[in-house]
Amino acid sequence: MTSRETQPSGEDDLIARYFKPLATDPGALGLVDDAAILKAQGEDIVVTTDAVVAGVHFLPDDPPDTVARKALRVNLSDLAAKGATPAGFVLTLALPRADESWLAAFAHGLGEDAADYGCPLLGGDTVSTSGPLMISITAFGRVPAGTMVHRSGARPGDCVMVTGTIGDAALGLDFLKGGAVAAALADDVSSREVLVGRYRVPQPRNALALGMRDHASAAMDVSDGLAGDLAKLCAASGVSAVIDAPRVPTSTVAAALLARGVTGIEALVSGGDDYEVLCTVADAHCERLAEAARSAGVALTAIGRIVAASGAPRFLDAQGRVIALARLSYSHF
Amino acid sequence: MTSRETQPSGEDDLIARYFKPLATDPGALGLVDDAAILKAQGEDIVVTTDAVVAGVHFLPDDPPDTVARKALRVNLSDLAAKGATPAGFVLTLALPRADESWLAAFAHGLGEDAADYGCPLLGGDTVSTSGPLMISITAFGRVPAGTMVHRSGARPGDCVMVTGTIGDAALGLDFLKGGAVAAALADDVSSREVLVGRYRVPQPRNALALGMRDHASAAMDVSDGLAGDLAKLCAASGVSAVIDAPRVPTSTVAAALLARGVTGIEALVSGGDDYEVLCTVADAHCERLAEAARSAGVALTAIGRIVAASGAPRFLDAQGRVIALARLSYSHF
Repeated sequence: MTSRETQPSGEDDLIARYFKPLATDPGALGLVDDAAILKAQGEDIVVTTDAVVAGVHFLPDDPPDTVARKALRVNLSDLAAKGATPAGFVLTLALPRADESWLAAFAHGLGEDAADYGCPLLGGDTVSTSGPLMISITAFGRVPAGTMVHRSGARPGDCVMVTGTIGDAALGLDFLKGGAVAAALADDVSSREVLVGRYRVPQPRNALALGMRDHASAAMDVSDGLAGDLAKLCAASGVSAVIDAPRVPTSTVAAALLARGVTGIEALVSGGDDYEVLCTVADAHCERLAEAARSAGVALTAIGRIVAASGAPRFLDAQGRVIALARLSYSHF
Repeated sequence: MTSRETQPSGEDDLIARYFKPLATDPGALGLVDDAAILKAQGEDIVVTTDAVVAGVHFLPDDPPDTVARKALRVNLSDLAAKGATPAGFVLTLALPRADESWLAAFAHGLGEDAADYGCPLLGGDTVSTSGPLMISITAFGRVPAGTMVHRSGARPGDCVMVTGTIGDAALGLDFLKGGAVAAALADDVSSREVLVGRYRVPQPRNALALGMRDHASAAMDVSDGLAGDLAKLCAASGVSAVIDAPRVPTSTVAAALLARGVTGIEALVSGGDDYEVLCTVADAHCERLAEAARSAGVALTAIGRIVAASGAPRFLDAQGRVIALARLSYSHF
């Protein structure tokens, strides 16, 4: 961990004080060297990198604790989808200013998640910026050689499955931005807390990583909207998909908002920030993956089929009619 | 490589067009997956991360080609000091706006350096920012297990050595900022090109990485000023050092500016952005490391000794008097 003297030296001390306790892996060398050491005993190292920017991927007044968790979890979610066991991460923190209470809360949230997910801080860099706060994390996972789950393995006939529930985070963001959800849930504190929590703190499905590795033909995490991400998976695999929209899993809160007409299925399947795992599974593996999900305590729902076709996946309504999706993915702008 | 839909989709295409050709390693999966695969056949993976921000680590009007090279080379320089062979890198690009000509030039410079240093692009993330351009790179290297060169291995009696020349980049930045160097070199285009080139495009000493691994007791790259970085190395090793300031290697241009009184030795040894390798070497290894440096075509100069003491290293002048250093490192502010 180096600050490259871009901060007043007092901040060097702050960073050391708050981040050094997170560097629990011997390879982190206590954050006092220029580099970290990642041991690999014959496994492949899976590398993923995702950045979050204030005002784009989180709101500037989100609690620092949740900002830290989201920054790490969007990367943990990639590792989960790839079937990898977390091994550690490096952090680039671009700070508009030094603020000890902010840093303390940020490091606390980051440290708890690093411990809970077995993904220790290995190193990093802190720089000053005149712009918005930005956190870039590169996370590492391990898989036995050659076993990473790719996007490109979906085959016609495979079942399309997704973990958890879809659309809650987009509804949470709508609430935070004062949209229709805010009006609809004006008197419903517990429902909005559910949705805002889903936006601020993703629940990466690392408990199901082994199941993905053993049973999925292709997988990715859903970060930009189920419809758009499924389109990417299909494009990488050279296939298309047909999805039964009513089978897309929704939370109780989202289902109630759907029933009231506050939101529509289109908004849910094109909303962002779900951080669920989308996967395709050959029939012979479906029941075993479902069993693995039950053991892991992760909801897993079959929502459709991969088909031998090109073009964007089709979402069908309860009457089997194609739902016209004006957009496939959430745009952060 | 994912853009997470934070850019207009046209920019996705731009990014794919310009960065995909850099993803020459099979582990990059053509940048179409969520993660990259880093193979490790029993070696340790050395991980380093350094970010550069417009207005802090480079000037906003620096050519995009040199910005790209600097962003990668500050990381390659860490790998060189650690004795590691480059294996690849991931890139986070925080862009204030889409600009095809800028991206094209940036990707061109990055691609040339990636090829020249054998360090292919493995993946990345592109995000929008309302703030300054920022590039965060995490680079990977390989070393035989247990052979990474640490900061903490310096022992009393070791020779202190440094590659290349010190202070040129700080003089180049002074020129670009219109300081004393600009006035002194108003009519000397070739000299200022040397200095500005050293600021904009570091020359990482990867050719000497094997030599470091075989012979250095400790090493780090000089990014924040020789004096400050030597102080960090000494602190990590629990030692101090005595440096003969007149032996600190300077370029012809820097030596001329020193002789004219335009700059002083203090500015050179506390200036930043050298990206040379600072190392300590037991006497028994000095001649072999010198020979390795000659073979690699890298200048290597002995500048002092490690001593059994604590506190900041002392820099002595030609008369053996301690030079008072008001600061040890360059502050980017």
